[in-house]
Amino acid sequence: MSEFRQNMATKEWVIIAPERGKRPSDLAKEIGKRQPMPSFSENCPFCPGNEKDTPPAVLQMSHAGSWKLRVVPNRFAALSPNKSAIRHPVGAFLSADGFGIAEVIIENSLHNKTIATMSIDEVTDILHAYRERQSEVSKNENINLVTIFRNHGPRAGTSLEHPHSQLIATPIVPPHVRYPLEQAVLYYDKHGSCVYCDLYKEELNQKERVIIESPRFVVFCPFASRSPFETRIYPKKHQASFLSASDDDIAELAVVLHQILLKIYTFLGDPDYNYIIRSSPIGDEDTRHLHWYMIIIPKISTAAGFEIGSGIYINTVAPEEAAKHLREVAIG
Amino acid sequence: MSEFRQNMATKEWVIIAPERGKRPSDLAKEIGKRQPMPSFSENCPFCPGNEKDTPPAVLQMSHAGSWKLRVVPNRFAALSPNKSAIRHPVGAFLSADGFGIAEVIIENSLHNKTIATMSIDEVTDILHAYRERQSEVSKNENINLVTIFRNHGPRAGTSLEHPHSQLIATPIVPPHVRYPLEQAVLYYDKHGSCVYCDLYKEELNQKERVIIESPRFVVFCPFASRSPFETRIYPKKHQASFLSASDDDIAELAVVLHQILLKIYTFLGDPDYNYIIRSSPIGDEDTRHLHWYMIIIPKISTAAGFEIGSGIYINTVAPEEAAKHLREVAIG
Repeated sequence: MSEFRQNMATKEWVIIAPERGKRPSDLAKEIGKRQPMPSFSENCPFCPGNEKDTPPAVLQMSHAGSWKLRVVPNRFAALSPNKSAIRHPVGAFLSADGFGIAEVIIENSLHNKTIATMSIDEVTDILHAYRERQSEVSKNENINLVTIFRNHGPRAGTSLEHPHSQLIATPIVPPHVRYPLEQAVLYYDKHGSCVYCDLYKEELNQKERVIIESPRFVVFCPFASRSPFETRIYPKKHQASFLSASDDDIAELAVVLHQILLKIYTFLGDPDYNYIIRSSPIGDEDTRHLHWYMIIIPKISTAAGFEIGSGIYINTVAPEEAAKHLREVAIG
Repeated sequence: MSEFRQNMATKEWVIIAPERGKRPSDLAKEIGKRQPMPSFSENCPFCPGNEKDTPPAVLQMSHAGSWKLRVVPNRFAALSPNKSAIRHPVGAFLSADGFGIAEVIIENSLHNKTIATMSIDEVTDILHAYRERQSEVSKNENINLVTIFRNHGPRAGTSLEHPHSQLIATPIVPPHVRYPLEQAVLYYDKHGSCVYCDLYKEELNQKERVIIESPRFVVFCPFASRSPFETRIYPKKHQASFLSASDDDIAELAVVLHQILLKIYTFLGDPDYNYIIRSSPIGDEDTRHLHWYMIIIPKISTAAGFEIGSGIYINTVAPEEAAKHLREVAIG
């Protein structure tokens, strides 16, 4: 029994079409096992002792004389801060220099850690680093959007094993980001409330896709999940920007982020994944119609011609099913 | 030297950031070789003799007593024609039954053919089958969008080796399709012309990204290519729908499609790819602001957290460079 479902916020549609006779627990086998990694790798530019292989840190956290987290400019960045943000025509087309800021958050000194296997304190440090760097680059008046994300494993687009996240700040807010904002305004003007607040409240109400609820956060597989085990973390308090997250918010986010990634790690066998923090464009931090959140996408399926052409994603695992399995995973 | 570029039609942005010291010709090595395949595979549901493994054909082309092309309903379809197209609420969310039509175009009787290695006549047959089936399913008054696409190889989302394309017809035209249409209307109202007509004319004008120009078609790597070797085929005549392609158009499209896929096959070593025919929603076939076209996406790069989060794609091969290489590939 397949079904179209609409994302309440973006108005995009997905098709939920569970494959007959296939159990989500089989996915772990299909994904395959990750090779064990050493805690130190001589040729890794992010391992201690190889600091000369990266530009000087813009943020460093230390413990007992050694660094435990470093943020460095991305040496292989597609964008550079030393360029103009001015757009210029190329015939009838529009272009701009590759101005922007790209940083790497080296999350841990140990080569073989990942968030699921870190301590809560270590995860808290990472989130503090995200907020601090987002705050810092947001001060650049030519920057309009900051995207913070984590690519874990080759299917998620990274060849670097050492645990790291990235920040890319751009002068441009593209339609892909603007369109959902426009939908959020239409919703706000019709209903007088933030569509993202209403969305997570409806998920809490329907309950079956909720995995974790804490005082400040709700973690769920959304009604209109685009791919198997897509998971979102929403703050319950209305906040348009991740910059509005307080220290207490971050402390609690570290716990739920660690929990959900450990559940995914355990159930699916350390799959490759992307996560992204979606946060308002610079200057819209206090708007009433936007809401920051985290989206976690295990890399299990491949977007093919139909998805690229129509934008309608076919998801072979019902989010109710995925959430049920993740709820049941016992951790620590 | 990296650069932002805007897609003139959709207004989406990409970053063109060629990797230093890396030549596009190295890509073929990274992609790896495809295993040679037999011309017949006993367990393949699409090979001659196994017709019982598919539902009865809705279209069949024959030669000398054997079929040379078959179109069959997709046995593993995510959508079914025997459902209601009515949307219904699920609490505050919106849902619809999985109504739709999904067909497989079995392009050839030989297991190991692909478009690059077929004859022009064989490619012509495929395009005729596309148009005929698109025309037929468009008559269903609950169908609003027909997407025809080809997934070639596992990285493009197919595990089936036998040469095939797919058609999926949906009752829904999602925002992903609507948004570019809205941009096209704005452009039409401002300029009095179809943005896609103006786009290909500007590409012809700038010349450096054009790979093939024939009397009726232009083949180019677009100014704002999202990924390496992204290639498009536009009809020069203003036509909103692929259904408006005449027999003569199709005969010439078969030639240029075969040429460009053979060039890609030769230069990149038979890479996995998706291609898609983008065509107007049903009922908008005669509109003055839309334009059908084909998009070919070799699967070389992986969309990661930044692309998913921002919608801005980082492309490591400049389209001028890609087009130059493909122009230079000698074929037949």
